[in-house]
Amino acid sequence: MLLERRMTAVPLSRIRVTDPFWRGWQETVRRVTLPIEFAQCTKTGRIENFARAARGERGTHEGYRYNDSDVYKWIEAACYLQIALGPDPAIAADLEQTVELIAAAQMPDGYLNTYFQLQEPDLRWRNLSMMHEMYCGGHMIEAAVAHHESTGSTKLLDVAMRFADHLASLFGPDRRKGYCGHQEIELALLALAAAIEREHPDRSRRYRALSKWMIETRGTRPSPFEEEYADAEGMRLAPYARQMLDREGVYSGEYVQDHLPVREQTEVVGHAVRAMYFFAAATEAFTDSGDEAMGEALWRLWDNLTQRRMYVTGGIGASRSNEGFTRDYDLPNRTAYAETCASVGLVFWAQRLLEGTGDTGYADLLELALYNGALAGISRSGDRFFYDNPLDSHGEAHRREWFDCACCPPNIARLIAAVGRCFIGEAKDAVYVNLPASCEAQVRVAGREVGLRIESEYPWKAKIGFEITVPEPTAFALKVRIPGWSGDTRVELPADFDEAEYDGNYISIHREWSGVSRITVDFEDEPTFVAAHPAVLECRGRAALTKGPLVYCMEAADLGGDAPQAFTVDPSDAEVGPIEDGLVPITVRGWIDRDEDGPLYRSDAETPEAEERRARMIPYFAWDNRTPGPMLVWLRKA
Amino acid sequence: MLLERRMTAVPLSRIRVTDPFWRGWQETVRRVTLPIEFAQCTKTGRIENFARAARGERGTHEGYRYNDSDVYKWIEAACYLQIALGPDPAIAADLEQTVELIAAAQMPDGYLNTYFQLQEPDLRWRNLSMMHEMYCGGHMIEAAVAHHESTGSTKLLDVAMRFADHLASLFGPDRRKGYCGHQEIELALLALAAAIEREHPDRSRRYRALSKWMIETRGTRPSPFEEEYADAEGMRLAPYARQMLDREGVYSGEYVQDHLPVREQTEVVGHAVRAMYFFAAATEAFTDSGDEAMGEALWRLWDNLTQRRMYVTGGIGASRSNEGFTRDYDLPNRTAYAETCASVGLVFWAQRLLEGTGDTGYADLLELALYNGALAGISRSGDRFFYDNPLDSHGEAHRREWFDCACCPPNIARLIAAVGRCFIGEAKDAVYVNLPASCEAQVRVAGREVGLRIESEYPWKAKIGFEITVPEPTAFALKVRIPGWSGDTRVELPADFDEAEYDGNYISIHREWSGVSRITVDFEDEPTFVAAHPAVLECRGRAALTKGPLVYCMEAADLGGDAPQAFTVDPSDAEVGPIEDGLVPITVRGWIDRDEDGPLYRSDAETPEAEERRARMIPYFAWDNRTPGPMLVWLRKA
Repeated sequence: MLLERRMTAVPLSRIRVTDPFWRGWQETVRRVTLPIEFAQCTKTGRIENFARAARGERGTHEGYRYNDSDVYKWIEAACYLQIALGPDPAIAADLEQTVELIAAAQMPDGYLNTYFQLQEPDLRWRNLSMMHEMYCGGHMIEAAVAHHESTGSTKLLDVAMRFADHLASLFGPDRRKGYCGHQEIELALLALAAAIEREHPDRSRRYRALSKWMIETRGTRPSPFEEEYADAEGMRLAPYARQMLDREGVYSGEYVQDHLPVREQTEVVGHAVRAMYFFAAATEAFTDSGDEAMGEALWRLWDNLTQRRMYVTGGIGASRSNEGFTRDYDLPNRTAYAETCASVGLVFWAQRLLEGTGDTGYADLLELALYNGALAGISRSGDRFFYDNPLDSHGEAHRREWFDCACCPPNIARLIAAVGRCFIGEAKDAVYVNLPASCEAQVRVAGREVGLRIESEYPWKAKIGFEITVPEPTAFALKVRIPGWSGDTRVELPADFDEAEYDGNYISIHREWSGVSRITVDFEDEPTFVAAHPAVLECRGRAALTKGPLVYCMEAADLGGDAPQAFTVDPSDAEVGPIEDGLVPITVRGWIDRDEDGPLYRSDAETPEAEERRARMIPYFAWDNRTPGPMLVWLRKA
Repeated sequence: MLLERRMTAVPLSRIRVTDPFWRGWQETVRRVTLPIEFAQCTKTGRIENFARAARGERGTHEGYRYNDSDVYKWIEAACYLQIALGPDPAIAADLEQTVELIAAAQMPDGYLNTYFQLQEPDLRWRNLSMMHEMYCGGHMIEAAVAHHESTGSTKLLDVAMRFADHLASLFGPDRRKGYCGHQEIELALLALAAAIEREHPDRSRRYRALSKWMIETRGTRPSPFEEEYADAEGMRLAPYARQMLDREGVYSGEYVQDHLPVREQTEVVGHAVRAMYFFAAATEAFTDSGDEAMGEALWRLWDNLTQRRMYVTGGIGASRSNEGFTRDYDLPNRTAYAETCASVGLVFWAQRLLEGTGDTGYADLLELALYNGALAGISRSGDRFFYDNPLDSHGEAHRREWFDCACCPPNIARLIAAVGRCFIGEAKDAVYVNLPASCEAQVRVAGREVGLRIESEYPWKAKIGFEITVPEPTAFALKVRIPGWSGDTRVELPADFDEAEYDGNYISIHREWSGVSRITVDFEDEPTFVAAHPAVLECRGRAALTKGPLVYCMEAADLGGDAPQAFTVDPSDAEVGPIEDGLVPITVRGWIDRDEDGPLYRSDAETPEAEERRARMIPYFAWDNRTPGPMLVWLRKA
């Protein structure tokens, strides 16, 4: 697979999300989520850590060693949301105050990490495998890029460049070999490089090179993480390091994807979020260089991930013990870890593969992870969060207000804030519609800026209207992705248009456009029950309901309080309802076991006949927003 | 429920297990398991810890703080096995040498614990909640009782009494309030009290009183475990104590059954092995005092355990995180913890309830846990062990040679060694046959010693022959338990006998016996598929096969390598085969999914029709003894 850039996402400054679905989420995040998250960051000492570092204090750092990153992700979300929805004075005040604190906390040499500054000033960069210094720095850099994009201010961008310069002064081909146990800096350096490309071309090149070097050296031997074992003082910071990194007493590095160079990896292993951030960075870093070998490696990993180790919801990382991957087809539903952040990371990686290949298979998975695995991480009210996302709950799983390790809440917030980036790609001679949610965009193509308006009720309905407005006649192709789930696809073009072409990925309408043109594309999104590969033993005899990009689930709240585990479904019957409480329900036919109290174990012959029942199902992302109770994605088949 | 002793187990010195099933296991344990376990205890420093303590050394203790207990349990198994099978010179040599070491390691004041003696001599009895000092002492006492019973030597018994005296000098009603985080000392003190009743009546009373006091004070406030929080030095020994003992930052004690006095407890909570040892001790301690309130409390707990929180195999303690209980009906199959030791503990408790009530419901559960949940803990070759016992494996669960925390291997060994204790109970005017495995016993009844020979092919066949030999005419009742699983039961009596009576629990043959009498009882043990209570959501649409006391499972090895998770069973059809490789298989009819490779998720409509297949099932205890692969207890029903 050749990695060669086919498109670039239309930046947020040129796209306005008008979609009721996503704009609704963005408004919820602005109104509810961001204030709550900032209050939590304040209450838990995350903000105060910066204030204390800024005052040059020493002492005990509040909370986990990587808590700075939650503040940075909040900034990123706040900044992108102000681009999407316009300025918000309350948020802007918190934001600018926090940016000031961060800038003040940075040390003269560019170092910035409140855990080490407050608590372990002598042990900076002494435990790269577990201490997340570059991880936190990376999120600071991404926040800075967002802040610059949103406000034009270079206040935080300058902090980011000083930090990156500091990093580049310590690590690199002719310096110390080192990278972070939790990948993130690789993506951040690329984002920073892109943001400053014009103003600081040398730094931009340096940061990009540092990122590529970290990606390429990871997994080579000697491993810097293994070498740290000899540093007793550094190891004191994380006594559990060997437990995470070794396998049978010998350094393995699988947990942090340091077991092999990425080009030699064939299976996704270890911590899922780290893997996603890593592969996303590798994809982006090597896209513009047209690297076929790296493309092949990433394709193998992607194929292993999405064809062997991914839940039907786009959730990934089945196991709690390593927050990550286990074996092919090992996808337990009730104990599914499927961390919200891992699905967010999957969106990031999928988007980069899409842009580097033009293969819409990646967009299919992008929207799967976005609308299901990731979005389930936040309540519809915006104030509660899932960290792990089971596909089968007996009533015990519920979203929570916050977590000590609070990576997920601000991660889903920043994804929603910047969701417009997933919609449209632009290239020299083509406009790519990857996710046809309603929006208004100014797209740069063929040297001009053309208007593209999309109107749809996505994801509820699959009929999409396009309006293309060009200031003067311009030749380019409008390419509309045909989702993998669409059956028959119908295109309505103006009378004077040639027939649309299908290039295997996109419907392509190539012509010289003039004035305003209106096009309608109608995908087929009939409800479809899917089965899993037979090796997924947990799903034997079960089916999951999908419709378009959405995966559905059944909750006790739609079953008169009965557990959906007591329901068997007829997979040949599913009726789509009208939109109701912001959701399109689907009614299915099946049978419900009749419950009889009595002994724990009894003769099976006495089991009463099941009763026919019609039951509503709702999208998975919307579960656990009503009366708490059992939920199930993979229904037993009758 | 009134606790009032109905019977006492015939001691091992008066019963010879002739049963091919259990005698086979005992021979395997003698030939394979005991030598392996002793070698492991040697290799891992468990024996050397005693040698070093005996030499008065100081320094680092090898292994976990409770490793002494594995040596003690090995001694107990070795002693009881020599009673069962006769002396074994190789075992006896290791045994006596180890007993010498233990005696030499005991401190002048009676204290004995190699962890503290070697590593923390100044912190004895400073962390009762987590440090297992009384637990280890308890297993030493039980080993001493076994050693005395087996050899007549008081060498270890003297050590035990010195330890118990030391304990009684420190703890008690007018001394320090304290008991152990891991119950065991309570059972041990009762066993010691019984063993020395005649020779040391005062000590016997004192130990029994200490045990009863520990049982009764546990769960009262202030908790000695909570008070230890203030002892920083003691807490240093177990920094994780609060994590285990608190709930939301406040002391709870549920993990160690210290949340409420046992008389007020209504649900089995916390660590399963601790709970079983505790309730077994409470039952035994309060049986002879005819305590109705304690009986009621224990009945509630038993009912909660066996009607809400027990696997069909007699496995208990669903969760790995607390090695214990979760909620009613929460019985996940694949992640079932169901520790081998917990089922061993269930056998202990059931036997004491049976003896204290004469209710055969307890015997039903005793044999369920014995033949299934506990026995699965050891391979048929005797050299590999399960710690946790899932009821659903995708191929990842296998017995292991040993564990760092090695409680289970010697626990199952000592249970098998002393299994004869479960067979027959004796009382003033009745002989109780609780488990009709083949044996020859001298039973004390009506002031005489009568011979009882049982011949059966239990558990494979349910036709049981009894031969009663009395030296002179003697009136008593022979009571033969009717198992809960038996359908119709037929009794064949000599022509001159009155008809047998049924008292709701036992078939009762009450008469004046003379000479030799032969009786046959034929239980009905047709294979039966059972269903679980509907609240066990994991078992919805599934059935488990049982026959007599055995629970069956299906392994890939009996399905041509296909996973039993791909099989749906017709629960109306099951055919018992002849004994084969030491097991009675059952053949069932069903359908196997046809496997098709391809994408991870695909339209359910393309799922091929299943094929009819007949498949063998084997007893659960015997799984994972052939080609490794998936296994399942709860089969999907067609």
